[in-house]
Amino acid sequence: MGEPAGIGGEIAVQAWRRRGEGVPPFYAIDDPARLAALARRFDWDVPVHPVKRPEEALSLFAEALPVVPIGAAPRARPGQPDRADARLVLAAIERAVADARDGRAAAVVTNPISKDALYRAGFRHPGHTEYLAELAGSTAPAIMMLACPELRVVPVTIHHALREAIALLSTQAIVYAGQVVDAALRRDFGIASPRLAVAGLNPHAGEGGALGREDLDIVAPAVAELRAAGVNARGPLAADTMFHERARRGYDAALCMYHDQALIPIKTIDFDGGVNVTLGLPFIRTSPDHGTAFDIAGRGVARADSLIAALRLAAAMAARRARS
Amino acid sequence: MGEPAGIGGEIAVQAWRRRGEGVPPFYAIDDPARLAALARRFDWDVPVHPVKRPEEALSLFAEALPVVPIGAAPRARPGQPDRADARLVLAAIERAVADARDGRAAAVVTNPISKDALYRAGFRHPGHTEYLAELAGSTAPAIMMLACPELRVVPVTIHHALREAIALLSTQAIVYAGQVVDAALRRDFGIASPRLAVAGLNPHAGEGGALGREDLDIVAPAVAELRAAGVNARGPLAADTMFHERARRGYDAALCMYHDQALIPIKTIDFDGGVNVTLGLPFIRTSPDHGTAFDIAGRGVARADSLIAALRLAAAMAARRARS
Repeated sequence: MGEPAGIGGEIAVQAWRRRGEGVPPFYAIDDPARLAALARRFDWDVPVHPVKRPEEALSLFAEALPVVPIGAAPRARPGQPDRADARLVLAAIERAVADARDGRAAAVVTNPISKDALYRAGFRHPGHTEYLAELAGSTAPAIMMLACPELRVVPVTIHHALREAIALLSTQAIVYAGQVVDAALRRDFGIASPRLAVAGLNPHAGEGGALGREDLDIVAPAVAELRAAGVNARGPLAADTMFHERARRGYDAALCMYHDQALIPIKTIDFDGGVNVTLGLPFIRTSPDHGTAFDIAGRGVARADSLIAALRLAAAMAARRARS
Repeated sequence: MGEPAGIGGEIAVQAWRRRGEGVPPFYAIDDPARLAALARRFDWDVPVHPVKRPEEALSLFAEALPVVPIGAAPRARPGQPDRADARLVLAAIERAVADARDGRAAAVVTNPISKDALYRAGFRHPGHTEYLAELAGSTAPAIMMLACPELRVVPVTIHHALREAIALLSTQAIVYAGQVVDAALRRDFGIASPRLAVAGLNPHAGEGGALGREDLDIVAPAVAELRAAGVNARGPLAADTMFHERARRGYDAALCMYHDQALIPIKTIDFDGGVNVTLGLPFIRTSPDHGTAFDIAGRGVARADSLIAALRLAAAMAARRARS
């Protein structure tokens, strides 16, 4: 479901309408009446079918959008989150994790939530991903990958002030991220010999120390450690020359040192179709690479491309795990 | 000329060979024998014609590459700079500036130099641009713009460690850059009402302070000050969502807070054709957006696209100034 005041409902309904475009079977964990009302509002012919058990969804999917009910109607209006909905938002996430963990679902795809709205209702996790990790009983940090057909990027530090991201950067964090990404590329992306490109923190990767010491003292030792552990990593590389078309052919994923270093190139290349993949959880989890979009919610204009890409990628990853 | 151990000579000769592609008339300030030897080495049919006065170059250009001799032969071999060449490298720059200042040339286009090689010979300027500013008798800091057909970006801080760039960022520097860029877009780029997009420093432009204070305390006041001064600036904007195709249509130049924030998007979009433009000098100066490329120098494979784009842009800017 995600945040019911956002575009989650309408893009879920849209994704079902576009099921002919190779969208794998999915079920929503949401309020069936709410989704049916959304479809009616936009004159979209979408039969919504409540299901008690996810197992029923597969045979239904061709004819109707299967919805496992969350048990109550959200109070939010488009663009206006309601604090009272927080427990439904969290319940939907918890149900998805339980279904994936118990094998009733092959993967979890999450629609965007509003951290603000949840915080006001007492939610205390730094974000969606950390909450999922806790639900999964995972203690290791989850790793965020953003993927589009042309590029995969992994920010080693994520939601921190830039100054703080620099202070937090460590050889250990880069090595851990590199190992998780290497394993995921093999297992979930079907890449037998993954190649990682590691970005430098400073301009020109520090120019031998003239433009900052971190690339020599933190990043280079991480690359050496990864290589010693059998990971095919290269770097630190000058970040500005890593992301053009020819350069991208040289690696399967780029490890980036901070949020914008990873997100600027991928959102520049593919703004609508990027997928957020959480690596290091005990189940597969993807999500669209955008927010709740309160400004356009309820108008039926939100694009479902990123959600569809997230559904497709989750299915492809699940298929590879099933075969392995 | 630029660094004679780099690709400067061969791309200058290449640019002349491609003069049919709308390359404006130019003359090299170089060693004529060296350029003739380069052309012979690659079997390129390029008559090299020494000229004493730049004024002779215009009528010659259709038939031969005009070269104002620097007075000696560089000793460097491809990929191997020679300390003894430093005075020739600097003499070529000085001659170009004098020609532009005295109206014998419409603009200066510089090939890449090797700061390392010059430093070893006693050069004490932080870079090419600062040296040009000094030669021009300019005391205000020069502003670097990178331009390609799809995007113009201006890093407010340039060659500093990322940590230092954050510490150096000031409202004053952003306002100064914004004013110089606004004036240049009007005078040199023919944009009557320029629109500037100002990137935030932190992820999500600081998310209201949750991800760093600099966007509230430094960037936002700069945008307000620019607007009060009549500059159509917007921001601070989340940097990751500023550079995709639709977003780019909303502005004429992006002011970025640090090197990679500006250079990652433009080099991702157009790696070969970007041009470096120095704003705030008393003459027009452009340069290709790449380095000396010692690794491929002397092989005749270097692409002249960026130099050609730099020549074209310089000519277009000069034509606009002449009309105004």
